[in-house]
Amino acid sequence: MTAEDMLAVAVEEARTGLAEGGIPIGAALFDADGRLLGRGHNRRVQDGDASMHAETSAFRNAGRQRSYRGTTMVTTLSPCWYCSGLVRQFGISHVLIGEATTFHGGHDWLAEHGVGITVVEDPALVELMTTFIAERPELWFEDIGQD
Amino acid sequence: MTAEDMLAVAVEEARTGLAEGGIPIGAALFDADGRLLGRGHNRRVQDGDASMHAETSAFRNAGRQRSYRGTTMVTTLSPCWYCSGLVRQFGISHVLIGEATTFHGGHDWLAEHGVGITVVEDPALVELMTTFIAERPELWFEDIGQD
Repeated sequence: MTAEDMLAVAVEEARTGLAEGGIPIGAALFDADGRLLGRGHNRRVQDGDASMHAETSAFRNAGRQRSYRGTTMVTTLSPCWYCSGLVRQFGISHVLIGEATTFHGGHDWLAEHGVGITVVEDPALVELMTTFIAERPELWFEDIGQD
Repeated sequence: MTAEDMLAVAVEEARTGLAEGGIPIGAALFDADGRLLGRGHNRRVQDGDASMHAETSAFRNAGRQRSYRGTTMVTTLSPCWYCSGLVRQFGISHVLIGEATTFHGGHDWLAEHGVGITVVEDPALVELMTTFIAERPELWFEDIGQD
């Protein structure tokens, strides 16, 4: 599976979230062989659940795993500190990021701690988040804990 | 509400988790006035949910909040990187920790970033986790992502 194919799964999740009236961020977790372990999207609006960012949702949907060695977390947006902490704690090996223009989370910190980081900077994803933030700023800032 | 009273809520959650056959870590989130916003415990075993550490469970159960300014996350055990990332991202102001002897997570990093940290080092909690880790090492190491 190519990086493009993996990112496409996360993008599909983000667009599903948007269609549901939610925050358009999607993610997917793949094992070392490119097999999909779990996919998900932000569920703050849909479930009233502040703990379900896209990455935590994909991680949860992957079920219990004995090890995350060799896995790749794909996310449409740079992971916040919460989701970066998830990657570091569970030893997820790689993070493939759709864009880090509209939000720059903890991926530099992850790189310092040995996580492989790839940032695509997909213009369509930058546009998706730019539009969303302009239209629903209160929801966006709530989701990243900014007053 | 005193720190002791707040910690007692998290301890009750940890003991509930143990009684359910789960990992005995509990947490609770309080607002600036000492009002309980949410409480919870690790749910890896009970729900097969790897994303529900004690702190994320308490955070989730607190529902959507516009701001975490002034809040205190109380946890029976030092928060791992995942839960430390949660605290940093959402601007939780204080973390009250039952013990950091059996596991030392990200609380020093949180202190460097301005979070108020209190470590109680409660001997009963050290005993609780020491016994649990000795009896169920595979479950404990799975929960912190160690091979």
